[in-house]
Amino acid sequence: MAQVYDRVALIGLGLIASSMFWAMKREGLAGEVTGYARTESTRDTARRIGLCDRVCDSAAEAVKGADLVVLCVPVGAMGKVARDIAPHLKAGATVTDVGSVKQAVIDAVGPHIPEGVHFVPGHPLAGTEHSGPESGFAELFDNRWCLLVPAPGTPAEPTAKLRALWEGMGAHVEEMDAAHHDLVLAVTTHTPHLIAYTMVGVADDLRRVTDSEVIKYSAAGFRDFTRIAASDPTMWRDVFLTNKEATLEILGRFTEELFALQRAIRTGDGEELHDYFTRTRAIRRGIIDAGQDTDAPDFGRIGGRK
Amino acid sequence: MAQVYDRVALIGLGLIASSMFWAMKREGLAGEVTGYARTESTRDTARRIGLCDRVCDSAAEAVKGADLVVLCVPVGAMGKVARDIAPHLKAGATVTDVGSVKQAVIDAVGPHIPEGVHFVPGHPLAGTEHSGPESGFAELFDNRWCLLVPAPGTPAEPTAKLRALWEGMGAHVEEMDAAHHDLVLAVTTHTPHLIAYTMVGVADDLRRVTDSEVIKYSAAGFRDFTRIAASDPTMWRDVFLTNKEATLEILGRFTEELFALQRAIRTGDGEELHDYFTRTRAIRRGIIDAGQDTDAPDFGRIGGRK
Repeated sequence: MAQVYDRVALIGLGLIASSMFWAMKREGLAGEVTGYARTESTRDTARRIGLCDRVCDSAAEAVKGADLVVLCVPVGAMGKVARDIAPHLKAGATVTDVGSVKQAVIDAVGPHIPEGVHFVPGHPLAGTEHSGPESGFAELFDNRWCLLVPAPGTPAEPTAKLRALWEGMGAHVEEMDAAHHDLVLAVTTHTPHLIAYTMVGVADDLRRVTDSEVIKYSAAGFRDFTRIAASDPTMWRDVFLTNKEATLEILGRFTEELFALQRAIRTGDGEELHDYFTRTRAIRRGIIDAGQDTDAPDFGRIGGRK
Repeated sequence: MAQVYDRVALIGLGLIASSMFWAMKREGLAGEVTGYARTESTRDTARRIGLCDRVCDSAAEAVKGADLVVLCVPVGAMGKVARDIAPHLKAGATVTDVGSVKQAVIDAVGPHIPEGVHFVPGHPLAGTEHSGPESGFAELFDNRWCLLVPAPGTPAEPTAKLRALWEGMGAHVEEMDAAHHDLVLAVTTHTPHLIAYTMVGVADDLRRVTDSEVIKYSAAGFRDFTRIAASDPTMWRDVFLTNKEATLEILGRFTEELFALQRAIRTGDGEELHDYFTRTRAIRRGIIDAGQDTDAPDFGRIGGRK
């Protein structure tokens, strides 16, 4: 694939940034890729494993001369990083980010972007339960979506180039506005994560069932929740604090529905339960048909086969 | 592996029964395996794919002369099946089941078990989102747990033989009492399933986010919920109706915790959120260390690698 940017700077070297590096290298999408991480131990790890062509000791140094700067830090840290790098950005450069919330990032980062620099917020819908510079792999974005949220009035060219980069890394790209992005994500990701965290916490609190029992006997249901609930705590704290309104709205609807099902259990209304479960099963078929998951029978376990 | 039973009868031919058949055949654990399913089309399918050595047109015929009878029907149907087969059970036979709830099965099946027949309830903690006679595979129970719930006073030998069968099919076996089983399962499986069903229903209801958006953009969080929420509706209706008390108790604790986290989001208490998420992450590590899951980074997706 052809090179899209001469120089790319990755600020923050966790799961997403390290996967981007390996994916860009796999496809030859960038000339030089520089990287910066706040902690020295992360920078040392990056140097040791060859993550980035050049690891810099300051964000300012990393972004110097970069055509694309990718902010890969938790949402709550985006504003500070933007302020630090602003004076060092090259004219005509594009700044993007990979945060899970978009309006809050626009509010925090936007004011720091200098005249002549383009800001095209982004969000790759990809991740695992792992974090840190060693967790990345080149295939993370293959067949995943990346949502771009360019501000109204952004010229077409910076967005088109960023789209080409993401497509080169294997992703499908779509554009939407920030408010809609935040609502969609509250439904598909943020609220499910909060619920998974809660359920795992309940299990841990329950004194009559030991932790080791919960762990030993966690088949499909709970085990899948723990996968979700093992994601990076700082990232998720920031998500909930910055996508507060949409998350609270969806949580409200969730508890309303949950109470209805709870009532059906209490009153023994088997028909209502059966109808509800039949409807949700159909949604699952839609997800498989849309190619967003496989129907492999093993739930990610090794050794299953169809 | 040595044969454990001369003749085994499988009543109900869904995911669990068909997996048991293939697992027993793989290891030579049973001489002849007979099978019966309520609907003719399921029996036809079973005959077509070679599921069971002999498919019978009545449960009575299937259990005749069987040393082990395995009830593999939804929990709500166990009582009726037990009544139907009771007069045809061989003296000295063992009856077991694979239901997800144990006290309700004991209450429904126990009274029909004739003198001289042993009843050893069981529950393999294994499953996928698929159901029906074609969904089974021999490896389903490999390294999974099977819980046996023998009534007090059951002689040791029938339980020991049943244990040998499950171990032969690849499972680890543990014994516990019915009340404790039902509470453990309410925490690890039943309540998580209800929550997943609810979340998938909320997403479907939300008018401002289209179904196709939910489906397209369902990354880790929601996608994993839909897997859970795609399980067999009849089975799950029966689980909630028959494990009512424990499920409602765990649901009560769940909403209590959820409201506390919701409040932390509303008030912007990042420290509480971070602490909570850090604690749940540690539980996940315990599950991996206990060998109940892999830490493969791909969440069951094809194409990921570590």
